[in-house]
Amino acid sequence: MNVGRASSSRCGLQIPGETAVNRPVVLAFGGNALLPDPEKPGSQEEQAEAFAVALKLILPKDGGLVLVHGNGPQVGMILLRIEATRDRIPPETLDILVSETQGSIGYLLCRTLRNEITDREIAAVLTQVLVDADDPAFSNPTKPVGPYYSSEKAEAFRDLAGWSLVEVPGRGWRRVVPSPRPLEILEISTIAHAARHGHLVIAGGGGGIPVTEKDRLQGVEAVIDKDLTASLLAVRLDAGKLIILTDVPGAYAGYGTPKQEPISSMDVATAQRLLKAGEFPPGTMGPKVEACVQYCSATGRSALITSLEALPSALKRGSGTWINP
Amino acid sequence: MNVGRASSSRCGLQIPGETAVNRPVVLAFGGNALLPDPEKPGSQEEQAEAFAVALKLILPKDGGLVLVHGNGPQVGMILLRIEATRDRIPPETLDILVSETQGSIGYLLCRTLRNEITDREIAAVLTQVLVDADDPAFSNPTKPVGPYYSSEKAEAFRDLAGWSLVEVPGRGWRRVVPSPRPLEILEISTIAHAARHGHLVIAGGGGGIPVTEKDRLQGVEAVIDKDLTASLLAVRLDAGKLIILTDVPGAYAGYGTPKQEPISSMDVATAQRLLKAGEFPPGTMGPKVEACVQYCSATGRSALITSLEALPSALKRGSGTWINP
Repeated sequence: MNVGRASSSRCGLQIPGETAVNRPVVLAFGGNALLPDPEKPGSQEEQAEAFAVALKLILPKDGGLVLVHGNGPQVGMILLRIEATRDRIPPETLDILVSETQGSIGYLLCRTLRNEITDREIAAVLTQVLVDADDPAFSNPTKPVGPYYSSEKAEAFRDLAGWSLVEVPGRGWRRVVPSPRPLEILEISTIAHAARHGHLVIAGGGGGIPVTEKDRLQGVEAVIDKDLTASLLAVRLDAGKLIILTDVPGAYAGYGTPKQEPISSMDVATAQRLLKAGEFPPGTMGPKVEACVQYCSATGRSALITSLEALPSALKRGSGTWINP
Repeated sequence: MNVGRASSSRCGLQIPGETAVNRPVVLAFGGNALLPDPEKPGSQEEQAEAFAVALKLILPKDGGLVLVHGNGPQVGMILLRIEATRDRIPPETLDILVSETQGSIGYLLCRTLRNEITDREIAAVLTQVLVDADDPAFSNPTKPVGPYYSSEKAEAFRDLAGWSLVEVPGRGWRRVVPSPRPLEILEISTIAHAARHGHLVIAGGGGGIPVTEKDRLQGVEAVIDKDLTASLLAVRLDAGKLIILTDVPGAYAGYGTPKQEPISSMDVATAQRLLKAGEFPPGTMGPKVEACVQYCSATGRSALITSLEALPSALKRGSGTWINP
């Protein structure tokens, strides 16, 4: 299904001297998709080859590629260790946990991709992302993190640590944290320099380390949506393309109904209408479509939602969901 | 005491167009010195101000500053959590632990220094460091990591995990790991680009993530000396200065004897002679002097060993130990 009009060719150059050829591409992908088993970091090596093949398809000839990875399973594993030792070792805050996973996932990606892609510099830049201390998300935490708890334990954490928790029927209680909107990428200049030199840059991992700025920069207990951070990075870098990889080949109209149909492309206005109508689930496809809408609106260029497997076909517009300005 | 001749003015430019004014400075400092209590990351905020004042003294006018931090206490804390959950959650290897601390310490430094130094871009680049798989250190592990164990536990780890352990009288057994020599900085190009733009770059943290390359890059269970990595970085970046901060104001002749005397400066040949004579303890001052010797020999420029407190005076040659080519 093709909803709405075709892509416009509006152009919004921000970096002097940059041409369409060397504009970077921004690619976001989930912590689940490429690092399926955080307990076996070795298993990632096997996936790196398939991933590298996909990256070679989208690496701009003279431009950089910025990779934004998720970190859900990895943060979950650190939280398990923290919970088990909470009585002896003071727990770390979520901003620090995100920074640790930027370290470990960034390293695994750098190392395994260097084994497959030898003609490009590859490096990971730790990334802090500014959020608004008054973001409404702070009074309405929705993002689940870490393990499931019994109702007794949940109550104890609520009383002692001030956590918000939600009950997931049949599984127990789970901590939820705020998911504020990303406003600025603090390390954007370093990322841009590297991308402009054609490097493969890993940045904004786990959505970025969330910080607020009231007088001073401070870390906050929150998790930023990585797709929205990827979109912000793509806008600030004036990227030529934003690609969001997920575990389905694209977005669907009427998802989960008998009339379910893949959307091959849609314009921003249509995407916004469908978002408002609740066509895309809030925790999964919703933020991805929203991220694409923001990028398309700001740059006048197209974004793609697809899976690793469908990427080659999607780049030829034979699969995936293209969102056009 | 001034041992040996004064600094020569030999010059070894490697980066075209670079001048003495904009050559970067490389500064190494211990995980103990600036992050004294890893259990209270907040305590670091208070130290950041004093540290930032010192950094402003050495920031080249138009050049970058590369910071190489230690990570001993931080790795120790992660190892405590790993040991406590070893029966439930598979332990991570040391290369991954180093990458996690590059994430967390890099973030804390980036954030707190941004509050103090507002006219420079500040960013941390994850850093892998190549070591030789045949480095003799792999058959002679000497670097202690993690907690102390009873002799029973030590034996179990020796049998089950193949660890090497040493007994520290009165405290118990401790794991020792290889400390191979750093050969190459894999992300040198990204670090160099950022430094060349005058950025403050955090790199090579914890001595770098140790990897070997036999067919493919692989992580190894080892810890690289951060001062030797800082020296290698300074050589590869053709830095204008290498400064190593420690908890004493400088190196001493006859350290711990009644004739103990601070060394205000010495040339490379003298430093090498004193190193060979065992004048500097192997685990502490030895690698620092060795790191300076390597930098001075390769670049023909001077290196400084001093403490954070003595740095202002040392820069005016009123304190600290200068090692000159």
